[in-house]
Amino acid sequence: MSSKPSLPKGTRDFLPHEVIKRRFIFNTIRRVFEQYGYLPIETPAMEDLKTLTGKYGEEGDRLLFKVLNNGDFLAKADQSALDSKDSQGVIPSISKRGLRYDLTVPFARYVVMHQNDLNFPFKRYQIQPVWRADRPQKGRYQEFYQCDVDVVGSTSLMYEAELLHIYDQAFSRLGVKVVIQINNRKVLYGLAEAAGIVDNFVDMTTAIDKLDKIGTDKVIEEMTKKGISDEAARRVMNLLKIDSLDELAVAFAGSPTGLLGIQELRNVHAYIDDSGLHNKLVWDITLARGLNYYTGCIMEVKADVEAYPDLVMGSIGGGGRYDNLTEVFGMKDMSGVGISFGAARIYDVMVEENLWPEDLPIVPPVIVMGMDEESHRYGFGIAQKIRASGINCDMYPEAAKFKKQMKYANAQHYPHAIIIGEQERDSGLLTFKTMASGDQEKLDIDAIITRLRHD
Amino acid sequence: MSSKPSLPKGTRDFLPHEVIKRRFIFNTIRRVFEQYGYLPIETPAMEDLKTLTGKYGEEGDRLLFKVLNNGDFLAKADQSALDSKDSQGVIPSISKRGLRYDLTVPFARYVVMHQNDLNFPFKRYQIQPVWRADRPQKGRYQEFYQCDVDVVGSTSLMYEAELLHIYDQAFSRLGVKVVIQINNRKVLYGLAEAAGIVDNFVDMTTAIDKLDKIGTDKVIEEMTKKGISDEAARRVMNLLKIDSLDELAVAFAGSPTGLLGIQELRNVHAYIDDSGLHNKLVWDITLARGLNYYTGCIMEVKADVEAYPDLVMGSIGGGGRYDNLTEVFGMKDMSGVGISFGAARIYDVMVEENLWPEDLPIVPPVIVMGMDEESHRYGFGIAQKIRASGINCDMYPEAAKFKKQMKYANAQHYPHAIIIGEQERDSGLLTFKTMASGDQEKLDIDAIITRLRHD
Repeated sequence: MSSKPSLPKGTRDFLPHEVIKRRFIFNTIRRVFEQYGYLPIETPAMEDLKTLTGKYGEEGDRLLFKVLNNGDFLAKADQSALDSKDSQGVIPSISKRGLRYDLTVPFARYVVMHQNDLNFPFKRYQIQPVWRADRPQKGRYQEFYQCDVDVVGSTSLMYEAELLHIYDQAFSRLGVKVVIQINNRKVLYGLAEAAGIVDNFVDMTTAIDKLDKIGTDKVIEEMTKKGISDEAARRVMNLLKIDSLDELAVAFAGSPTGLLGIQELRNVHAYIDDSGLHNKLVWDITLARGLNYYTGCIMEVKADVEAYPDLVMGSIGGGGRYDNLTEVFGMKDMSGVGISFGAARIYDVMVEENLWPEDLPIVPPVIVMGMDEESHRYGFGIAQKIRASGINCDMYPEAAKFKKQMKYANAQHYPHAIIIGEQERDSGLLTFKTMASGDQEKLDIDAIITRLRHD
Repeated sequence: MSSKPSLPKGTRDFLPHEVIKRRFIFNTIRRVFEQYGYLPIETPAMEDLKTLTGKYGEEGDRLLFKVLNNGDFLAKADQSALDSKDSQGVIPSISKRGLRYDLTVPFARYVVMHQNDLNFPFKRYQIQPVWRADRPQKGRYQEFYQCDVDVVGSTSLMYEAELLHIYDQAFSRLGVKVVIQINNRKVLYGLAEAAGIVDNFVDMTTAIDKLDKIGTDKVIEEMTKKGISDEAARRVMNLLKIDSLDELAVAFAGSPTGLLGIQELRNVHAYIDDSGLHNKLVWDITLARGLNYYTGCIMEVKADVEAYPDLVMGSIGGGGRYDNLTEVFGMKDMSGVGISFGAARIYDVMVEENLWPEDLPIVPPVIVMGMDEESHRYGFGIAQKIRASGINCDMYPEAAKFKKQMKYANAQHYPHAIIIGEQERDSGLLTFKTMASGDQEKLDIDAIITRLRHD
């Protein structure tokens, strides 16, 4: 019966200190979301496959985890697909469900299905795991949390400003210094208009998106490969050097869409300037964001290289405005804007730069130890008093030898131990040991509680 | 492209107020777990099918959700199983993974895999969803949360006492009045010994477990059907009438296991009596708990019928001691004890009896409204000040008509609104409206923050 257990590749267990640190990140972000009036929703892990399929491109369809129908699924299996060994072709007949691939598509489905129960603009956040059958590699898992905040049902640019503030606030509270980049897809469209390559808009943005990775020459090469003339490609690259909105407005004189993009950026900034930020907010005309469903402002967050010069890390957040989130489910004209936090990468930044708050508690601050049977029972009452005072407390489960109990206390990294023997029981003055220094004091239970409360 | 979206049967979305209420339950329980020194772990949603299969009986194997292998899974499919349309037979060749069915088996796997990173006794809790392909019905879903707390690596009965205190504390903090029942599987074994039917121990406990549902006659009938003599069955039923441990000890004179069970119950009670409970703790000799892996103390929690006479609800928690959690994964002698909270049923009790705390916040306490463009911008700064003071705050996204903004504020059930027009902007005295009463006052921002803080 017995066999050595294992975990599916690309998945992982979390030890207590990892759960607690991740919870610190989620709770910090969650509190900021709620401060801005965003409310939590949850959707099931499994969605109908027809909800998910075709939403993430061919690559995405391949990476969806499909759940086998229960019972005698072969009875309804597509026989001709089986006979021709067509794995993809047989899926619809043996699998109705798939695991959530992101939080965006389930959110769109949710808005459409619950539209009569929701008030618009609807402000929601969602922090749940998603699953992708990606090839596992360092830092990339098949199960990971996404952390999204969106508002749908309004075109107001106030929400762009709210979301920028949410990024600023959340990273400030996490203690991570960041640079928040902003741009606008309409500005990118203006570039295409100004260069006369509107038909190649997607090719252009896809190429520009790689600029900081592959450099100017390769971006030009990539554009010309897609049929953009060398002259137009160079014109785009020259426009990308512009670093003021005023100057760009001149270049966009003939592009109403480009000018609208500039105006939108200005309107967002107008909200921000009034209230101030803790982190750097920069307009970056080269910021493109790969996803083609964005239609207005786009944002991205990176750890601040000036603060962390040795850190190698991609973006730790991103988002933007989209106009047609729910159209694929039959609900039109539902404009929205949203951002997400890359929780796993934020975790990695905080580990690498040691940014955890010093007082983030992992284990209880104290363990109680009884040195004999009677002291052990007495100690249980002491532990109960400490717990009743609101302080977490562990207790060694039996009157074992001092060395054995102390070994456990050390291994668990408890900051303090309360040691009780006959003398302590008789006098009510308990031995209170500070593990790091080895100091021992005799204190009554009230004094111990006061000490623990202020430590 | 567009199609009306749906959800898989047996799964559901959660609206914000449901997420927040459920979170209240989880956080309350979590805080009690941590007060007693239990630490959180998490395991992945998907486990290797070989970890799960064979652990939950034939029924359980059927109800496991299996995840289809990605890629060209038919290439490795068992051809003879396919040819004979043997759905169950083909599964091992096309599916390596399944969705977590409970938290107990993943915990056992976790302990075995991480034994070198853990200190024993290892105290852990886990709050995560599980999936079962049960036929959906009222109150039964295919995805639901389990909420388990266990300690492994010690036989100390102190932990039974800790867990009883955890039940008592958690339900007391939730405001749910309960009755906690306790018994011991060794006492049940003593019954079998005293009646001379040790070989029918499992048949006997299975029958007794149904006593409060089907009554004495049917329990006797069920036992005799399994080959227990009528005389022995009646002897068992008579022993079940005993309601004091002293009296039972006399009846168990010839049953060392039964006497040990009595001693264990006494030792657990010795810890409890010292410190007092908020809820009723009763020894119930008929409590059997269906699961045969329990070997010592067993516990069950029900809502208190005296407090809620109209409530129809099964147990809302249960657990006990087991001796061989990890043996199936090759690790012997790992005794443990654990309990779980039936979160969904606790939620239902709290809804039916309206036990939610009055001050459980669902939406922010206030929304800001600007009546013209300039007031809207000014209002954004006001909203930011309120948020910076630690109070949640929403803002209507544009300077829409008063009626439209008020309609949104009412639909969202915001307790207060701050209304800003030219006059308010000039004077700094903002209109602070209490929605329930309709009262309006003119207050400056500091006075409003003070009011919101004390409301």
